Amino acid sequence: MNKVGTPKGMNDFSPNQMVKRNYIISNIKKVFEQFGFMPIETPSIEKIETLQGKYGDEGDRLIFKILNSGDFLSKVDLVESSTSKEISKKIVNKGLRYDLTVPLARYVAQNKNDITFPFKRYQIQPVWRAERPQKGRYREFFQCDADVIGTKSLISEIELIQLVDNVFKSFELSNVTLKINNRKILEGIAETIGVPEKLTDITIALDKLDKIPVEKVEEELLSKGIGKKEIEKLNKIISSGFEILNLREILKDSSRAQEGIDELQYIFKNIEKTNIKLSFEPTLARGLDYYTGIIFEAVCTSSSIGSILGGGRYDNLTGVFGLKDVSGVGLSFGLERISLLLDDLDLFPKNIETFTQVMFVNFGNDCVVTAIKYSTELRKRGFSVEVYPDDVKLKKQLNYANKKKIPFVAMIGTEEIESKKISIKNMLTGEQILSDINGLVKILDE
Amino acid sequence: MNKVGTPKGMNDFSPNQMVKRNYIISNIKKVFEQFGFMPIETPSIEKIETLQGKYGDEGDRLIFKILNSGDFLSKVDLVESSTSKEISKKIVNKGLRYDLTVPLARYVAQNKNDITFPFKRYQIQPVWRAERPQKGRYREFFQCDADVIGTKSLISEIELIQLVDNVFKSFELSNVTLKINNRKILEGIAETIGVPEKLTDITIALDKLDKIPVEKVEEELLSKGIGKKEIEKLNKIISSGFEILNLREILKDSSRAQEGIDELQYIFKNIEKTNIKLSFEPTLARGLDYYTGIIFEAVCTSSSIGSILGGGRYDNLTGVFGLKDVSGVGLSFGLERISLLLDDLDLFPKNIETFTQVMFVNFGNDCVVTAIKYSTELRKRGFSVEVYPDDVKLKKQLNYANKKKIPFVAMIGTEEIESKKISIKNMLTGEQILSDINGLVKILDE
Repeated sequence: MNKVGTPKGMNDFSPNQMVKRNYIISNIKKVFEQFGFMPIETPSIEKIETLQGKYGDEGDRLIFKILNSGDFLSKVDLVESSTSKEISKKIVNKGLRYDLTVPLARYVAQNKNDITFPFKRYQIQPVWRAERPQKGRYREFFQCDADVIGTKSLISEIELIQLVDNVFKSFELSNVTLKINNRKILEGIAETIGVPEKLTDITIALDKLDKIPVEKVEEELLSKGIGKKEIEKLNKIISSGFEILNLREILKDSSRAQEGIDELQYIFKNIEKTNIKLSFEPTLARGLDYYTGIIFEAVCTSSSIGSILGGGRYDNLTGVFGLKDVSGVGLSFGLERISLLLDDLDLFPKNIETFTQVMFVNFGNDCVVTAIKYSTELRKRGFSVEVYPDDVKLKKQLNYANKKKIPFVAMIGTEEIESKKISIKNMLTGEQILSDINGLVKILDE
Repeated sequence: MNKVGTPKGMNDFSPNQMVKRNYIISNIKKVFEQFGFMPIETPSIEKIETLQGKYGDEGDRLIFKILNSGDFLSKVDLVESSTSKEISKKIVNKGLRYDLTVPLARYVAQNKNDITFPFKRYQIQPVWRAERPQKGRYREFFQCDADVIGTKSLISEIELIQLVDNVFKSFELSNVTLKINNRKILEGIAETIGVPEKLTDITIALDKLDKIPVEKVEEELLSKGIGKKEIEKLNKIISSGFEILNLREILKDSSRAQEGIDELQYIFKNIEKTNIKLSFEPTLARGLDYYTGIIFEAVCTSSSIGSILGGGRYDNLTGVFGLKDVSGVGLSFGLERISLLLDDLDLFPKNIETFTQVMFVNFGNDCVVTAIKYSTELRKRGFSVEVYPDDVKLKKQLNYANKKKIPFVAMIGTEEIESKKISIKNMLTGEQILSDINGLVKILDE
């Protein structure tokens, strides 16, 4: 027999982990709904053509492909198609969801006549990527997405930033910085230094400024065919300290950049005091090819866990599925990252793993019948109750209650049955009292 | 471009459908937790050897297989392995979860040292089967399972039946019959008529009694090599009407049957009054090879939707994963079937699709700033609020609110800003009043 276990990068979640995950999801859902987002779900499996070509070459390689059912080889000429790439086209027509954005685009294009726009939807589901697993990065992980589709209004950006603030506040998470940029400013920079066609190279270089020395960045730009003169201009922009008002002056000849700065200023002006820190970061890029306006990303500065949220505006999400000119803006919380973070910072509420409020001890057939009756009565009143199933040593039963952090244990032996009482043990203090069922109800109600 | 859509048998769920699904799941979860079940989740993808050989030949065929990543053909000799079956062994080492029971068995075997037994776990996740789709049967569907692992006590059966009762009560679903049988009684029947080795054939035949005439059933038994004498004995048992007391007498020589009847009587005796009808059905078999004790299944007699819940006791669940002698009992609610049923019977609560309590109309840049401020204030107080993002015709904005069933619309134009008031429109009655923010809070609180 092979070693029993899960596939690489895929995890089980124990009750202790699940109550934490459920806590995070339920907080996020609550805030999503407070902002008028409605849930949808899409299938885990999509047609392969829906997925392929949407995430770049690297993304295509990381999609989990599902073998066609039945005699999948029957129509394949093995001599003609002998490489993995060629044969996989013939034996695969489905793949596993890679993110929640492409399925959303497919959903919107497909249901455009039934949807009332602007469409505010949230979606909390797993996605799969055949990446090399590492801390905080798994092959199956949950995304918690909210998007507004079908409006260009910046009010959507404002609401999303408020939403982010409310979610992190609900976790009592402080030291969160929301880095914000606008792709239009990046375009304006490339335009202003005279190489608009080198937008990607310049963005990648800017993104490295806080990691490697400026000389190294310059070397890289030179190697990409950007001239000394342009690099000098870029340096002047960098040395301005990326202050938004300086940038407005420096990029004054780029109407694109001015538009981007206007948008950012409108957003900053109209957001009330937040708990998170909003920070303009002109080097932030995140999936540049994809976003066309605002880009944002959240990190917690008390931790090295990295980005716990990302998002932005995209002006042509559904075009590839045949629905043109639909603008959207959205964000995605990473469940696993947030879970690691709240664990690191000890921010999960105490006692979230306790469901059962009282356990009835099993003193054998005659007595347990009474315990069953009481348990039914208590559940009718809304309490969470268990009857220990086996007539084993008391110590073993109490150990079970302890392990499950059940706060009260109720004992009904022959004496208690005669006197119509219940012995109630407080598992935290060890204190034990004799009471009737109403007394137990009172204790559980406290 | 190919037609945009989901793969065969896999569905999107719109907001309207999702709120119904969430209603069902949240009710089921609440009852699971009231009985002390704790959540776990297992990965969607399992090693192929974990799945294969567990569901019979037919099941093996219906497992969705995941193609190995990268250059999967590199180690495959195409001449040597030229059939689909042979080659799939070499290019597939993972598959999609087929049910929640085998992953549970794997989980328990793998974590036996960390689990406190009896282990009461619930699990609500999708499973995938490459079956032919039909009404109420999809290729991706949700199971809602609860199991008690590591005890033989019938108290678990009693608690599960009470749990079923509470779940259906929470849906205000009447006319539910819980059919109950015990595999030991089926064994006792085969034993008593003298052909214990024909248990499966006899079970299949008994299961057909309410569908085809008794003569046809007899023909089938004859064709399976069961003699006239045995069939006559079987007929005598059938003609007893399957009354439990009659059966005790008829099957008096089978200790196995007596044990089964004892168990059923203990269970029936100790269950308080239920809303669902408990019905002893000696012909019920459900996955006979799997269950070893109690078997049950729920149907709603007001509908033709079929079984909405199934379950039973299995004495050797984890054996195949190397952990012997662990008995368990569990059940599985079918989310899609229950959803169809509640739809058919119009049992979903009204207004579950309404999250947003008030929408602020957008009267353009100057006015909407005030709307944003008020919306922030109202969300702080816990209300669900939207600001319409675009400055478009009022009619379009009201139409959005109507479609989303938002009960109140708040309007702030220049007049309202001057007088620090809000025009509040009740979308149901059409009534409109002028009030301040405290008045709006009062209305939303009602």
